[in-house]
This record gives sequence, structure tokens and C-alpha cells, in this order.
Amino acid sequence: MDAQLAGDSYGKSAIRLLKVVRDDARHAVHDLTVDIRFEGDFAAAHTKGDNSAVLPTDTMKNTVYALSRQHDVDPPERFAARVAAELLNAAHSASRVTAEIGTHVWERIVVAGRPHDSAFEHGSAERRIASVVCVRGGEPTIEAGVRDLLLLRTAGSAFSGFLRDRHTTLKDTRDRVFSTAVSARWRYGTGEVDFNAAFAAVREALLGTFATHPSESVQHTLFAMGEAALNARRELADIHLSLPNRHHLLADLTPFDLDNPNMIFIPTTEPFGLIEATLHRGT
Amino acid sequence: MDAQLAGDSYGKSAIRLLKVVRDDARHAVHDLTVDIRFEGDFAAAHTKGDNSAVLPTDTMKNTVYALSRQHDVDPPERFAARVAAELLNAAHSASRVTAEIGTHVWERIVVAGRPHDSAFEHGSAERRIASVVCVRGGEPTIEAGVRDLLLLRTAGSAFSGFLRDRHTTLKDTRDRVFSTAVSARWRYGTGEVDFNAAFAAVREALLGTFATHPSESVQHTLFAMGEAALNARRELADIHLSLPNRHHLLADLTPFDLDNPNMIFIPTTEPFGLIEATLHRGT
Amino acid sequence: MDAQLAGDSYGKSAIRLLKVVRDDARHAVHDLTVDIRFEGDFAAAHTKGDNSAVLPTDTMKNTVYALSRQHDVDPPERFAARVAAELLNAAHSASRVTAEIGTHVWERIVVAGRPHDSAFEHGSAERRIASVVCVRGGEPTIEAGVRDLLLLRTAGSAFSGFLRDRHTTLKDTRDRVFSTAVSARWRYGTGEVDFNAAFAAVREALLGTFATHPSESVQHTLFAMGEAALNARRELADIHLSLPNRHHLLADLTPFDLDNPNMIFIPTTEPFGLIEATLHRGT
Amino acid sequence: MDAQLAGDSYGKSAIRLLKVVRDDARHAVHDLTVDIRFEGDFAAAHTKGDNSAVLPTDTMKNTVYALSRQHDVDPPERFAARVAAELLNAAHSASRVTAEIGTHVWERIVVAGRPHDSAFEHGSAERRIASVVCVRGGEPTIEAGVRDLLLLRTAGSAFSGFLRDRHTTLKDTRDRVFSTAVSARWRYGTGEVDFNAAFAAVREALLGTFATHPSESVQHTLFAMGEAALNARRELADIHLSLPNRHHLLADLTPFDLDNPNMIFIPTTEPFGLIEATLHRGT
Repeated sequence: MDAQLAGDSYGKSAIRLLKVVRDDARHAVHDLTVDIRFEGDFAAAHTKGDNSAVLPTDTMKNTVYALSRQHDVDPPERFAARVAAELLNAAHSASRVTAEIGTHVWERIVVAGRPHDSAFEHGSAERRIASVVCVRGGEPTIEAGVRDLLLLRTAGSAFSGFLRDRHTTLKDTRDRVFSTAVSARWRYGTGEVDFNAAFAAVREALLGTFATHPSESVQHTLFAMGEAALNARRELADIHLSLPNRHHLLADLTPFDLDNPNMIFIPTTEPFGLIEATLHRGT
Repeated sequence: MDAQLAGDSYGKSAIRLLKVVRDDARHAVHDLTVDIRFEGDFAAAHTKGDNSAVLPTDTMKNTVYALSRQHDVDPPERFAARVAAELLNAAHSASRVTAEIGTHVWERIVVAGRPHDSAFEHGSAERRIASVVCVRGGEPTIEAGVRDLLLLRTAGSAFSGFLRDRHTTLKDTRDRVFSTAVSARWRYGTGEVDFNAAFAAVREALLGTFATHPSESVQHTLFAMGEAALNARRELADIHLSLPNRHHLLADLTPFDLDNPNMIFIPTTEPFGLIEATLHRGT
Repeated sequence: MDAQLAGDSYGKSAIRLLKVVRDDARHAVHDLTVDIRFEGDFAAAHTKGDNSAVLPTDTMKNTVYALSRQHDVDPPERFAARVAAELLNAAHSASRVTAEIGTHVWERIVVAGRPHDSAFEHGSAERRIASVVCVRGGEPTIEAGVRDLLLLRTAGSAFSGFLRDRHTTLKDTRDRVFSTAVSARWRYGTGEVDFNAAFAAVREALLGTFATHPSESVQHTLFAMGEAALNARRELADIHLSLPNRHHLLADLTPFDLDNPNMIFIPTTEPFGLIEATLHRGT
Repeated sequence: MDAQLAGDSYGKSAIRLLKVVRDDARHAVHDLTVDIRFEGDFAAAHTKGDNSAVLPTDTMKNTVYALSRQHDVDPPERFAARVAAELLNAAHSASRVTAEIGTHVWERIVVAGRPHDSAFEHGSAERRIASVVCVRGGEPTIEAGVRDLLLLRTAGSAFSGFLRDRHTTLKDTRDRVFSTAVSARWRYGTGEVDFNAAFAAVREALLGTFATHPSESVQHTLFAMGEAALNARRELADIHLSLPNRHHLLADLTPFDLDNPNMIFIPTTEPFGLIEATLHRGT
């Protein structure tokens, strides 16, 4: 029998980088985690142990650090494009190089009412994502997104009128806690994009819709969030959303002769619902 | 503008289940984490807030518990198939139901030289995976695998003769520590399969090849492991392998006037290499 | 031989609770993790299997939920005191009950420039801590604190003039990145305390000092932070600070003919320094 | 006001080390995580920013690597003692140095029925602990232990006859799943100890007792485990045990007209019971 290679990739993940940009006394920090992935003709490495076409993943890491010294890392989409292009150029056997950047949130510490020049506190666990795929002789594909954006709302969220079978015990509710950790990822079409402005606008659309949409289900609000994002910026070609449903159970206080008018909840982590969809722009 | 749904799914993840099987005094435990996913025509839930076709994810959870009471959960492939078929039947709008099971390892505690009837210690972090997709009117697709199988070897692993560019600083080595956390996933073809025996044989092939293959790179050994798995059991149609390279850096002891003949290493977690490939059976 | 009990405790940890407080349309959320611990005379449970003095940990959990329905959970110090007192009263064999609360940070989503009434986004991973110990016939001891407050500064941080031995390779630096995850814990003396105001003032003192202190070492700044906290509120009797040093290594770019004027750093997680001290109020 | 230092320490945590010992073709691996802590007179660093007595934590790390090249790291108690003594000697201001080692479990891969010379698979998440405190002019204190030893039993575990109050809803049970993650830590008295043999014997006593003890509660079995450990090796002066109670809830299948004769359980992680005690040797 001959086993045959039906697809392969390799790369370096979790390259950590902090860049400090100093304009006089005022500093900015960019805290990034970079993942690099190569696809192409690397069959000889697999089948013959011939590494002559394999640029080491250690070199990918070095490239990220070297380029970050020479170029802006903000917006991350541009830096990812630069890294991917450089690596595609360096490795003749690669036909497709992906550079993905997750940006960690740091906010200035406010001292005596003023944001400090060089001291920062970490923001939420949320990460902004920028991902660029470079192919030989073609235009780069640029995606952006956000991960682990934790949200919770306490009003206007229902789940009722659903399908029932012999294993269904859930009751209709017109008022529940809706809590999720949004992962969103969208693709930019061709044309110029102001990446930082677009990210901010899409994020704002996602949050505003989550907050205010009259929700009949996670699906219902997910779709509205995606629609709002597509409406917020014409540059988006499509958007994928993944919304885990972090269930909050109403505590049963009847054994203690107490009612519980949607007041005391038990947050749970396992199991969780998981709702996902991709929306594209209609014609 | 009209946003359009271009794909969606929903389900319940991280359903935890321990089944205790008691044959007289001798007990067996099956510790499972189950994920369920539905695909089908759920557009009305997204676009209109109409839940009439939506079987709650809470019901998916209930179904897992109820069926686990009535049926064997071992082998997990058969139980996953049963759960997926039951749910496909319950939800007319679902066209495709996936049930994926991760099995946690428990081993009998040895007391006075004998495996105990009803006491267990947790094994490695490794998880056996069983995943079944049921579609309406078709045969189920059955996949199996293993996740987080941590391996390390201290001999016979090289990485040399690779491509170099201006950012390359890595030196050739003919002797390095090779450490990884194997994720493997394979698809069974049609025909009867003894799932427990097949899993054991594939796992043994993966470990035996990792241990003994004269390795020129992670890619080289990954391919050999996949080939060995396909050779071990004719039932496998293909196999996907994902091998992170958990780098162990040789400690620099020269400042202390000490050599380091491949003896003292610094295990690192970030960054890590990531090598992936799919192999199918040649003709 | 007789083994003898030389100290024991039991309790319930990680009781999760979300309380939604609704004043008309404006909601507030309190997201808490509560730990309960009993100490006292529970020897018979250990040595004889006699549970007659053991209030179940399940009851501790129920007590938290029931009291949270009947009483304010904010400030957490008062709610912890109430829970601890209730449980001390319920269990005659307990001589000392500790209730510790960690509060998770949720902030209102800003929609169209205004904080929303009932929608929230998760803040940083930081947790406010409130811990109360009730003993029979005595005054409760009240501690407060903060955990996992991630901070980073890019100016004014040095480490030089340290002790050297034959294993020392570190070089003096007058300019480094200083990054830490502050855990602080302070004890209130007797007398009335406005717990929310005190927490805010101490937190502000810690952050302001971290940001602005001319730092000769982590120790140096830790002490200044503790001193600032004691100065900020007379109610503090003492404070304990634990500051991991999350090393940021300057990337070596010389192989690429690039300098690195404190611009490109590699954040690391292992190993880390750990600096701890307790300060009390001088006389 | 003058803030006063009332206790302080500093050190390096999470120093990762893999030592490969090669006797001809047969290799052994020792995978360690080392934590170092200094106590002593370091007040000037805190209050004046004077680092002249401060040996850098970076030097602690270097010392671990250098000594691991020159000396055996097995048994870890002896290596910890050597590291602590070396560092106490290097830093005149330190009066007390603690070196604590956690050992990760690697087992030989079995190939064709035989344990391989140089290939290993990771064992359970359990870590063996060795901790040594060196003080100037005194004998070292040596502790050992184990962490995250996950155990589960399905027979012979009860919890009944407990104290009840108005918040108690738990029912008596004579048959439950008992699952825990044992942390144990014991102190060796003076005199020679065969550390590896003692560790193995204590671990075996803990597991054997967990498996077979007729358990009326976690407290009851914890005490029996501690007693068995003290009985197993005369060298132990005392032992501390910490046993979280990882609750397994009996699934309620009555809505589906199914009974559940202690067969289907829901493993949970939050909340958990936590039972702790110290036992010393009676006279």
C-alpha cells in the first residue's frame, strides 16, 4: 500500500510580541500573538525526509520580530500582510502563507483624572483578530474579527414556541439571562479599507445589536448582529458568528419558601449551547 | 440591503456523563464529554424569530442522558451513532446531525497487586474521540481519533538541510528532543468495524512509529505515523494528523564553564511549531 | 500508632451566583464566586465517621442562594458577613466560619453614547475580593483585596546594582518593561467602613503608584504601592501584596543587522519572578 | 505615617527543566518545574531601592540549570536541597531559602511488548512534589507530596446522618460516586530517608486506602488515608491532605419514565466541596 499526502501545512503558532512605540514621553503598546502557516509543495519533507524546501518555523518567528522593528504593527491587518508577503517571497515552495494576529487589549491607567503616558492596565479577555492570506501572483485575502467578547443582557431575551419531543423538558420563557462569548470573523472585499475604523464600527454594531435586539433566540439575535455588521461597513463581504450560550439557571428557592422573580441565577459553564452562522451580503 | 444566511448550525457542547456499569461487584466507568450539532433548515429561527423547527439544545442533553441509561455507551462510536440517529428522527428540519464523544481515561487502582473492582485513578490527559454524522436517508459517517496524546523522544530525531534565508539563525541538528501532543482523526470506510480493536491498533501504530522512526523532521515522522496507521487497519479510509512541536531548548551553560552534551533542556510552550497533514490510502 | 488530628477544615468552593437587581428598567448585575470554610470540632467525622455535627457543604451553597434573595449582595463584605454569621449560627460545632467572595467585573455596554440599562460587557479578568471570618462571641475579621489586576509600564523602571555571584549573567538595566498581575489583600481595623469607597480608593492608590513610582525594582515599587494604600485609607490595618514579575525579554535583532532600542519585546510566562510582602501601619 | 515591612519574600517560579540521562542506549528523562523562594533581610530593597543584597531571580534560574548539569536531579529532594544550600550560600542576606520541585510523569512507550529505551508518553496530570527549606546554621526541612492525583470510586461511599438546618435539602445516601483530586504533603523527620521508596510507599498507602476504606464521608476517608500514610513509613512526621469533592449528580431520568439505579451521573466542576486536615503521629 502507498499512503498518499492529501493536504498538509506547517507553521509557527503563539509568537508573542510587545512593541513599544515612543513618541516623546507618550508611549503606545501593541501586544500581539502571531500565528504563521505555510501551504504548498512540501511533499518531499513528508515522504523522503528532504528538508531542502522547508523554511524553519524558527525563521518565521525571526521574521515577525525583524519586520516589527522596521515597520508599523498597527493596523494589524497591514502588518500581517507584510509578514505573509515577506515569507511567501522567502520560501519558493510555499504557494499560500497565512499570518494571523490576535491583539491583546491594554488601556491607559488614569492617574489624577488623566490617562498616563506610559502605564497601562489590561482590558477584557477579548482579542481583535487580523488574518491575511497571501498567494503567489494574486491579491491577499484579508479577514478581521474578534474573539472572546463576553456579553450579558438581563432584559428582552426570550425562548419559546420551540419544537418538542419526548425528551423535551425545557419550559417556554419570555425573560431570561442571555450571556455569550462572541467570536466573529468577517472578510473584507476588494478596495481600500480603514481597518481600525472598520473594526471599531463593526464591534460597535455587534454590541449595540446584542444590547437592544428583541431576542426570540440566540439564532435570532446572532442573525441581527451579523446583519448590523454588514450594514455598518460596506467593506464587509461576509461575516461568521459563533455564539456559545452560557446558560444561567434560575435558582430554585422554593424549599426555603422564597420566590425567585428572575433575580438569582446560577451561571454554568458545562454544557453550553453553541450557535453559529455565516451571513453574506444579499444582492 | 438584505443579509443572507450562508450556512448555520446549532447544538449543545460539553455534555458531561459518567456511566457506571455494574456486573456483580466488578464495576466499569465510562466518562464521556458529548457534543451535538444540528445542520438543516433553521432559517426561520434566524430571520423571523420563529422557533417552531428548533429542538432545544436542552433536549439534546436530555436525549444523551436518557439513551445512555437504555443502551451501551461502549464502544463510543455506536453510542454516538444511536444519539445522532435519535435526534435526526426527532427534528424534521435537521438534515445532518453530528454526535462527537470524547472519552476520558480511567484506570483501575492496583491494590495489593490486583486491579480493584470499583476504584480508579485518572490516566493521561489523552482523549479518545468518536464522531458520527447522520444524514437523512444515507449511511452515517464514522470518524475516530485521539487528542492531546503527549509524547517525547530523546534519540533519533534530527532537523537539518533546511531552506535558509536572511532571517534564518537556526542551526542544523542531528540530535534533538522531539516532543508533541498528537491529535489524530481518521475516517472509517464502509463495512463492519470492531471499533475498540481498531482504536487500539491505530493508537499502537502511532506510538510505535513515533518511538522508532528515524526522524528527519516532524513532517517526516508525521507521515510515517499516518502510513503506519493506514497499514495497521484496512478499515481506515484516511487519517489527519496534527503535531505541535513543543520545543525543548538546549540550555546555554557556557557562562558557567559547563558543557551541555544534549542533557539539560528548557521545555517551552510559546511559540510552538504546528505540522498538519492528511493521508489517504493510495490505489 | 495513633494518628492525631492537628487541624482540619471543610467547606464549599466556587459557588457561582448572578444577582440581577431591577430598579424599574435599569438593571444592575452582581456576578459572584463564593467560597465557604468551616473550622471547629469535627473530629468525630474524621475518626469515627460520625456526621452528626457536619452541616453539608450543599447546605452552605443553599444558604448563599437563599440569603442572596433576601439581602443585598453589595457591598460584598456585608453579604459575606451575613452568610458567615448565618452559617456559624446553624452549625454548633463550627467555631470559625469564613466566607470569601470574588466579584467579576461587568460594565454597561455603551449604545449611541449612553450606558445601556440592561446589557453588559465583561471587564478585565481582575476580581475584587471580600473575605469575612466570624467566630463565636467575637467580632468578625474583614479583609478585602483584588486579584489578577494586570498592569504594565514602559518607562521609569530599572533594576541595577544587584548582588552578583558566579551564576549571575543578568545585566544592569535602567529601562525595562515592568509587567505584573497584582494580588493585594488588606485587613480592615475596627470601626465603620464604607467598603465600596475604600476599595475604590485603595485600588486607585495601587494603580497610581504603579504608574508613577520611580522604580528601582519590583520590591521597591511593591513597597511604595502598599504604603500608598495604607495612606489612602486610615481603615486599613495592614496590606499584603504579591507581584509576579512577568518578564519581557528584549528581542535580539543583531543577526538581522537591526538595533532594538527598547522597542521589541518577547512577553514570557515561564519562569516568572514572584515578589511578596506585608506592610503594616507604623506607630 | 510610616509603613513598616512585616514580612517579605522573593524568588523565581516555574523554572522548567528536562534532564536527559543517557546510560548507553537507555535514556531516562526528568521533567521538573522548580520554584525558588528567598526570605531574609531585604528591607533596603523595599524601602530605599537599594538592590545590593538582592541576588537576581534570573540567577536562581541559572543556578538550577548549572547544578542540574553537575549533579543528579533524582531523587528531587536531594537536588532541591543542593539548590537551596547553594543559593543560601550565595546570598548573605537570605536567612531561609526554599526550593520546591514538581515532577511531571513520563512513562516509557511500550513497543512490541517492550518498554522503549528513548521514547515516552506522558502519564497522568499528577505531580510529585519535593520541597526543601535551608536555613543558615540549621538542618534542612524536607517535605514531599503529590498534587492533582485524580481518583474515583463507585462503591462503598456514603454520606448520611449529617446535621440539618432550614437550608438543608440534601438527602442521606449510602451509595454515591466519590471523586477527588488528592493533594498531599508530608514532612520527613530527622534521619536518613530513601526518598523514592518513601514516596512510592506513601502514594500506594493513599491509593489503597482510598480504594478500600468503607467511607462515611470525605473527612472519614481523608483521615484513614493520612493514618495509612503515617503507618506506611515511620519517616513521616506529619501529613496534610486536601481533598476536593468533585460532585457527581445522579441524573434525573423520571421525565423519560426511566429509573436511574446509580448508573448515570453528571460530573460537575462548580461548586466543589473542599476537605482538608493535618495529621501527626500520636505518642
